[in-house]
Amino acid sequence: MEPGPPGSSGPAEPGPCLSGQRGADHAASASLQSAARTEPGRHSLAVAAVLPAGGCGERMGVPTPKQFCPILERPLISYTLQALERVCWIKDIVVAVTGENMEVMKSIIQKYQHERISLVEAGVTRHRSIFSGLKALAEDQLNSKLSKPEVVIIHDAVRPFVEEDVLLKVVTAAKEHGCTDYDLEFGTECLQLALKYCRTKAKLVEGSPDLWKVTYKRDLYAAESIIKEIISQEICVVMDSKEDNKHVGHLLEEVLKSELNHVKVTSEALCHAGRHLQQIILDQCYNFVCVNVMTSDFQETQKLLSMLEESNLSILYPVVVVSVHFLDFKLVPPSQKIENLMHIKEFSKKVKERNILLYGLLISYPQDEQKLQESLRQGAIIIASLVKERNSGLIGQLLIA
Amino acid sequence: MEPGPPGSSGPAEPGPCLSGQRGADHAASASLQSAARTEPGRHSLAVAAVLPAGGCGERMGVPTPKQFCPILERPLISYTLQALERVCWIKDIVVAVTGENMEVMKSIIQKYQHERISLVEAGVTRHRSIFSGLKALAEDQLNSKLSKPEVVIIHDAVRPFVEEDVLLKVVTAAKEHGCTDYDLEFGTECLQLALKYCRTKAKLVEGSPDLWKVTYKRDLYAAESIIKEIISQEICVVMDSKEDNKHVGHLLEEVLKSELNHVKVTSEALCHAGRHLQQIILDQCYNFVCVNVMTSDFQETQKLLSMLEESNLSILYPVVVVSVHFLDFKLVPPSQKIENLMHIKEFSKKVKERNILLYGLLISYPQDEQKLQESLRQGAIIIASLVKERNSGLIGQLLIA
Repeated sequence: MEPGPPGSSGPAEPGPCLSGQRGADHAASASLQSAARTEPGRHSLAVAAVLPAGGCGERMGVPTPKQFCPILERPLISYTLQALERVCWIKDIVVAVTGENMEVMKSIIQKYQHERISLVEAGVTRHRSIFSGLKALAEDQLNSKLSKPEVVIIHDAVRPFVEEDVLLKVVTAAKEHGCTDYDLEFGTECLQLALKYCRTKAKLVEGSPDLWKVTYKRDLYAAESIIKEIISQEICVVMDSKEDNKHVGHLLEEVLKSELNHVKVTSEALCHAGRHLQQIILDQCYNFVCVNVMTSDFQETQKLLSMLEESNLSILYPVVVVSVHFLDFKLVPPSQKIENLMHIKEFSKKVKERNILLYGLLISYPQDEQKLQESLRQGAIIIASLVKERNSGLIGQLLIA
Repeated sequence: MEPGPPGSSGPAEPGPCLSGQRGADHAASASLQSAARTEPGRHSLAVAAVLPAGGCGERMGVPTPKQFCPILERPLISYTLQALERVCWIKDIVVAVTGENMEVMKSIIQKYQHERISLVEAGVTRHRSIFSGLKALAEDQLNSKLSKPEVVIIHDAVRPFVEEDVLLKVVTAAKEHGCTDYDLEFGTECLQLALKYCRTKAKLVEGSPDLWKVTYKRDLYAAESIIKEIISQEICVVMDSKEDNKHVGHLLEEVLKSELNHVKVTSEALCHAGRHLQQIILDQCYNFVCVNVMTSDFQETQKLLSMLEESNLSILYPVVVVSVHFLDFKLVPPSQKIENLMHIKEFSKKVKERNILLYGLLISYPQDEQKLQESLRQGAIIIASLVKERNSGLIGQLLIA
């Protein structure tokens, strides 16, 4: 058995959990936090998870095993680990991977800062992989940091959308009924295996539409769209606290609100050492529209980018930042300002390394109220497109509304 | 029973079929044409299809019934009709829709120029809808243009990716075995219904991964991605026949070829009254990169747009046109030319009405060979992004590589 990176394989500390301290779970798990909090007794039960991840993904029609296929440039299995990790009462997560993918898996754990993960070598079949995982949990190994669990959840590495309430139900059932013979989606062979070789209670997770398995290439497409949708549910309009800047920022905010249904649009000032903004970043908003006071510079955008870079927000998901600039095209021909604003390309290359997708947006600001509304509406459509698609091929572009 | 729009409900003329005369089938059906041609005997068999489309799509979680949910702005059922229509030996397609959706369905048939379609009112259950469709085919109605079929294919309106070879196998089996009792995915009740009430042979289409049904919202996402992928498999670089223009056009073509794997990149001249280009449009290429000679005008792009507007290429799928302009940023500051090129926004609004997505792309053309390669590579990445996403929110933008 091979442990994960230093410090990653120990059990989580008991105590308050699901507080969203390290990003990316808010959108998916918000509804689950209350469920967990109503079951504090659960925390005292020792629960572990085993993920068989030794498959080769032949049905996918792509050379990469499906658990390593990228979704928004991050491997699928990382999403599944993230879903299990956010459940604080799962003390250990044992992943069974083939020897040849061991190094890939280690680098995934390191890059995406996964915790509580241990690695074991997968067997030639799914059952043997599960067996290896259970064995690692059951044995009293000298160097093992694993705690012996009372309940083990067996979960496919290619089911990224598992929710805490399902896991909670399974664990509750397992505790109440032991391993009695359930009617399980995947048959009971795995269960028999667990009963035969281990002194650990085991139960398979029953399937449901939400628990859907990524099997075909079309499932990868669907998963990507679902994830994009989840992280596009909130846009924060960031502006300086100066009055005139605030005015135009709020105008844009209003138009965004009316143009984008199903999206929560908030606004925040860059002042007060950005305390409120810090909270929005902690609460995992992945989309920012930054209103710049001067048409020709990026002062506000640069402040925001620094804050984002300091946070770990973009480790798991690409963060979209739209740097917005206003200009009365009648008074000043846009070409005069464009050359300056084209420097956004250099910034965008730099922050792309940190998984931040930066785009520029120059919005026409005519004196005529109706025309202004129309150009703000055009701007909102462009912002919505950028947020929805998260197209890394178009970073650094200066778009014009 | 309500007939479709004038001229749409009669049987197709026998003779050569699948010649791709009216767009959009090439990518999906290319491999099937040979299969059909090896079975000429099939043309003499009278085959019809019944599509029950009366469902309300409650599992989708959206208010629109799933068969009417838009994919690239076109309702799902239109893709299914297109898949059946391209099979010339299916003489009639009977769609069962609810009374309240009858007008919507008629407008879909008209807008997307579907042929051989007849409409009947759906029953309260799927079985009753199928019965209505079969009844319409079996009865000798005075005003009916329907021909009495020997075999009827029952096909779900929400399975858009049906391929001709599957249909052919089904029809062959149905003809050979009549309605013997098959082991069918959807059970045999429908078959019993057909046997009991009609004098028409009926057989249900067996499911397969390709025949996958759009059931959940994630299936709509997957379908959209699959369709985008299908229509993004070929990019045609269009250029004037003048030598210097051809040179830079071919350079871009080469970079596109090396940057975009899995995409067929061709090039075509705008000259010879565009004969070859006409053929490419007929062969259903949905992506064009148009190289303009003068940096400051759109002469070549306008010629191409006229050709596309005259053709019916964009009826079924949005066509992407990237208007490419070259400029040595060292010799001429881009801002000088940008103002002219920003007129692309007006063109793009006009052609959007015809389902053509027009974008501008200004590529830096430095003297240095290596720098040129890099800016062409940037251009290729932007072109690939535009083709892949088909983002209508970004039409009319002038992107810079």
